[in-house]
Amino acid sequence: MTKEISCQESARLLLEWEDILVLTHASPDGDTLGSGAALVRGLRKLGKRARLALEEPPAKKFQYLLDGVLEGQWEPQHVMTVDVADKSLLGRLREKWEEKIELAVDHHGTHVDFAQRKWVEPESAATTELIYLLLQELGVPLDRETANAVYTGLTTDTGCFRYRNVTPRTHRIAAAMIEAGADAGEINRRMFELKSKQQLEAERRVMDSIRFSCKGKCAMVFLPKAIYEETGAKENELEGVASLPRQIEGVVIGVTLKEKENGEVKASVRTNLPADAAELCGRFGGGGHKGAAGCSFRGLSLEEAGEKLERACEAYLEELEK
Amino acid sequence: MTKEISCQESARLLLEWEDILVLTHASPDGDTLGSGAALVRGLRKLGKRARLALEEPPAKKFQYLLDGVLEGQWEPQHVMTVDVADKSLLGRLREKWEEKIELAVDHHGTHVDFAQRKWVEPESAATTELIYLLLQELGVPLDRETANAVYTGLTTDTGCFRYRNVTPRTHRIAAAMIEAGADAGEINRRMFELKSKQQLEAERRVMDSIRFSCKGKCAMVFLPKAIYEETGAKENELEGVASLPRQIEGVVIGVTLKEKENGEVKASVRTNLPADAAELCGRFGGGGHKGAAGCSFRGLSLEEAGEKLERACEAYLEELEK
Repeated sequence: MTKEISCQESARLLLEWEDILVLTHASPDGDTLGSGAALVRGLRKLGKRARLALEEPPAKKFQYLLDGVLEGQWEPQHVMTVDVADKSLLGRLREKWEEKIELAVDHHGTHVDFAQRKWVEPESAATTELIYLLLQELGVPLDRETANAVYTGLTTDTGCFRYRNVTPRTHRIAAAMIEAGADAGEINRRMFELKSKQQLEAERRVMDSIRFSCKGKCAMVFLPKAIYEETGAKENELEGVASLPRQIEGVVIGVTLKEKENGEVKASVRTNLPADAAELCGRFGGGGHKGAAGCSFRGLSLEEAGEKLERACEAYLEELEK
Repeated sequence: MTKEISCQESARLLLEWEDILVLTHASPDGDTLGSGAALVRGLRKLGKRARLALEEPPAKKFQYLLDGVLEGQWEPQHVMTVDVADKSLLGRLREKWEEKIELAVDHHGTHVDFAQRKWVEPESAATTELIYLLLQELGVPLDRETANAVYTGLTTDTGCFRYRNVTPRTHRIAAAMIEAGADAGEINRRMFELKSKQQLEAERRVMDSIRFSCKGKCAMVFLPKAIYEETGAKENELEGVASLPRQIEGVVIGVTLKEKENGEVKASVRTNLPADAAELCGRFGGGGHKGAAGCSFRGLSLEEAGEKLERACEAYLEELEK
């Protein structure tokens, strides 16, 4: 049974503990790394032993967050997670630690209980918002590195303050982080601007693959599995491309079709009103939300899956117009 | 002679005036339109006659800012400008009004005096920051439309809070605007995501034109004048593309070469340290800042100008390495 606790109760717990291992989720992103790094730094300032555990080395662009926070060889007495929505997301860290996790701090609305206690606020745009509140509660002074870490979580989980999850609090914490010395301009350049030549080439190919149907209401891009080998781009470098189709004027259903290693074709569907992505994907055994959903096709080529989905889009849009 | 005044003095002036025409700059952007719209709404709430004047109809995506604020046929007793750095930027509005401008509110460090009084704060990321302070000073309650207008200026002039011009105040005002009802998510979608098919096609061509030289340290893209006619894209739709070359890993000098209607070729140069864009462009009679500068070539084709500039980049980078 997981007990729900508050920010104050989380702070009291941490004050009692003397050494703390902070676990992050697999495929680490700016929010889990920023949360972990800020918390480890803060706990050390209180004289505690603390370190961060990673399931795998993060992308090079996140390296600046990790200076020193991974160091330490001791066996921890207390274990907690940051930004981990489900124990399955711990990956290789799961087996060793899953029975010992005393506290989960998270902002995912989809959080599935696994820790002894949790502090979860789905209204929070990033877990680093919660870490900031926790550090305030603990009375830890902010230094430049901590401010960089908190800011990194805010900006990466909101697409640089672009998405609908941003609240007034998100902006106010960003303001406080810049005041505490966060190098916001440089962080945003690394997170949102800098791209490798390989990524550029892969993006060019994806853009070239775009196909419109249903009188321009449906747009589809294709990511054959060979694209990674042929261009040298990494899979995470092409995540942003998935949002391309629905950005085009007049498009109601935007689809990204990805050929997976196991031969499956995965469709990511993004819709604008009145189309419902979950309803459309449900017709192929998939699911999700009204605005974003997914489904998979087995035994079909990328091209065949595209055609099948195009026909389904056509039928679905006709039904909507009735 | 232009007199420098403060926010408080600007507010006192506006309280004295009974009818006010607010001028925006040509090629109106989100900051000049947001500033003008927010101010006109605020002044009307104080019982004054106020309206906005545009040099030309703005891009469709800004239409939501203009609801009602252009209306009115009266001859104004008082005229002011928002976000106008130089009277030449008034375009067709200049002739009629330039001698009558009593107040300029602006945030450009390059502001050239033209009004009887000015309130200019170059540390401000957007002119709408100043307009917000002015409305506070005037005691005008914020409504949803005003909040949308102020937010639009903040987000468009900072690349959605991405650039180095963002200050803690920028974020705090954004927070206040969301609290006052600004639809930040939708505004950001319109400003930064939505693109026309024509724009997509033109961007694809520009990406396809990229050429690297100097062992990957120089990247260049080409915009032939035919691109607009061939794709149907508008010139302002391709402004974002200019930032592409310098976003690529390892690139020190990023160049966008644009063929103009009059046959000139215009180069926009963006550099990362240690390269100095102004120094490089100075070799061709151009100028600008360390990080961003420009120059023009006459009597050369796009291709020839590119080759000439590439050779200059090579020589310049060799000098730097010495």
